[in-house]
Amino acid sequence: MNKLDKDTKILIVGLGLIGGSYAKGFRAAGIGRLSAIDSDEKTVRTAIETGLVEHASTKVEKETVASADLVVFALYPEVFVDWIRNYGSYLSPGTVLTDVTGVKTCIVYKIQEMLPPGVEFIAAHPMAGREVYGLENSDETIFRGANYIVVPTEKNSKEAIDICTSIGRILGFARISQLSPEEHDEMVGFLSQLTHCIAVSLMTCKDNTHLVDYTGDSFRDLTRIARINDAMWSELFLLNRDELLQQMDLFIHEFSDLRYMLARKDREGLREKMRLSTQRRAYFNKPQQEG
Amino acid sequence: MNKLDKDTKILIVGLGLIGGSYAKGFRAAGIGRLSAIDSDEKTVRTAIETGLVEHASTKVEKETVASADLVVFALYPEVFVDWIRNYGSYLSPGTVLTDVTGVKTCIVYKIQEMLPPGVEFIAAHPMAGREVYGLENSDETIFRGANYIVVPTEKNSKEAIDICTSIGRILGFARISQLSPEEHDEMVGFLSQLTHCIAVSLMTCKDNTHLVDYTGDSFRDLTRIARINDAMWSELFLLNRDELLQQMDLFIHEFSDLRYMLARKDREGLREKMRLSTQRRAYFNKPQQEG
Repeated sequence: MNKLDKDTKILIVGLGLIGGSYAKGFRAAGIGRLSAIDSDEKTVRTAIETGLVEHASTKVEKETVASADLVVFALYPEVFVDWIRNYGSYLSPGTVLTDVTGVKTCIVYKIQEMLPPGVEFIAAHPMAGREVYGLENSDETIFRGANYIVVPTEKNSKEAIDICTSIGRILGFARISQLSPEEHDEMVGFLSQLTHCIAVSLMTCKDNTHLVDYTGDSFRDLTRIARINDAMWSELFLLNRDELLQQMDLFIHEFSDLRYMLARKDREGLREKMRLSTQRRAYFNKPQQEG
Repeated sequence: MNKLDKDTKILIVGLGLIGGSYAKGFRAAGIGRLSAIDSDEKTVRTAIETGLVEHASTKVEKETVASADLVVFALYPEVFVDWIRNYGSYLSPGTVLTDVTGVKTCIVYKIQEMLPPGVEFIAAHPMAGREVYGLENSDETIFRGANYIVVPTEKNSKEAIDICTSIGRILGFARISQLSPEEHDEMVGFLSQLTHCIAVSLMTCKDNTHLVDYTGDSFRDLTRIARINDAMWSELFLLNRDELLQQMDLFIHEFSDLRYMLARKDREGLREKMRLSTQRRAYFNKPQQEG
């Protein structure tokens, strides 16, 4: 396969929020003949009845897998690895695989090792999501304005990287870039996983529900992501454990520094930290959304 | 003075973002004959030229202070205490004072001690703000949807508490409540100051500017308040130091617990924390703004 067009046979494994949004995005763009595999019967029925895909099944049918040009895995990381272990032999030479997984180092090399000859896995991370789940909440517009990261290794061909990149374009991501698995996991450990750890800790450090009537935007903003899918995020944390521990340690060290400044009444030290944070935060403004 | 009406002589000391917004709010409601004191000449000129107040000065004129029925202090806390020390004797019996200060225990009792007989200080905290400053950014609509806390002590009369409460109503706050100075400072230490410490530490714990292109909403939400007025916030932190240190310790302890669970691969422990945070966060949804 060299490019995606209306005849490309695309198989989506896992029709949840992200897999469903991929299917809707491909459909809206008129790309691909879509089929899907999902463990939930109702999801499979809905996908067929609404015409989202041409074919769907709760079973992993050998002929569906073997005939796919492109397979998109939208599964939890450990389920993804198990799937390849169990059904990887069904894949035909020339098939390109990609994924949507939020951690990379721990799965990308492993999967690439496990594949039959001629089957190529090129990892990707669509950095979009919502606090709700399932096909019924899927929506191709969640990708607009979001980041799409292609995560190649040395084993990947230019052709597969190009196909993976074109998926990001077809789905309408605002920015498409490339990172190595290690760079990706450092980035995600800091920007996403560390922030979720902080939000969770803020909610669990004391019974704060008596303060709900006084809550302003600051606290609401910092804890929005404390509403969290515990099965998925505990898995993501554990799979990126070493990196996340490092990021947590960096944060604890800095936060303790600030605490120490306060304890010893070091006003100038506190002000210096605040000036640095103000200056750095300016880089992170979205030009069109913040002043 | 028993109630606020169009003839009440209201003096606003400090015409910054909040003082200016109070003036605009009173004006919009047709309440009070307004005068103002501000150390900045341009601010004083603007306030007069735009007709925001009838009288304004950079100097503390004895007759202006003595003739006021209500004085609103919109100053940094330490400047507020100094002001009362220097000019408190100008105040006439029957005058009610209020403020907008973000910390209470350390200033309320001190100010109440310092006042001449017959002058009453009733503290208040309008929990509204923006990341910009000055009269030019003031806007009475910032109070809509926000919380207004009246913070009485045993020394306060019912009449003064009623007047202070009516200010919250006139300015259009969504919710008006009462807390003791100690309850107020615990609430603010947790909901506001701790969250600012976290946001600052996230921005300063490492040079993260190379990650700007990958930043999603989580990180942006958690660091919005890292853009911070270092002079004001360092003062607020130091004035609420004991309480804030306690809140920081609570958070560090909890965050370290989470880190330890991750380090020892305690998936069930992590999931339990996440389920608790998800459950608690549900209390903090704004019914009309979040799903």
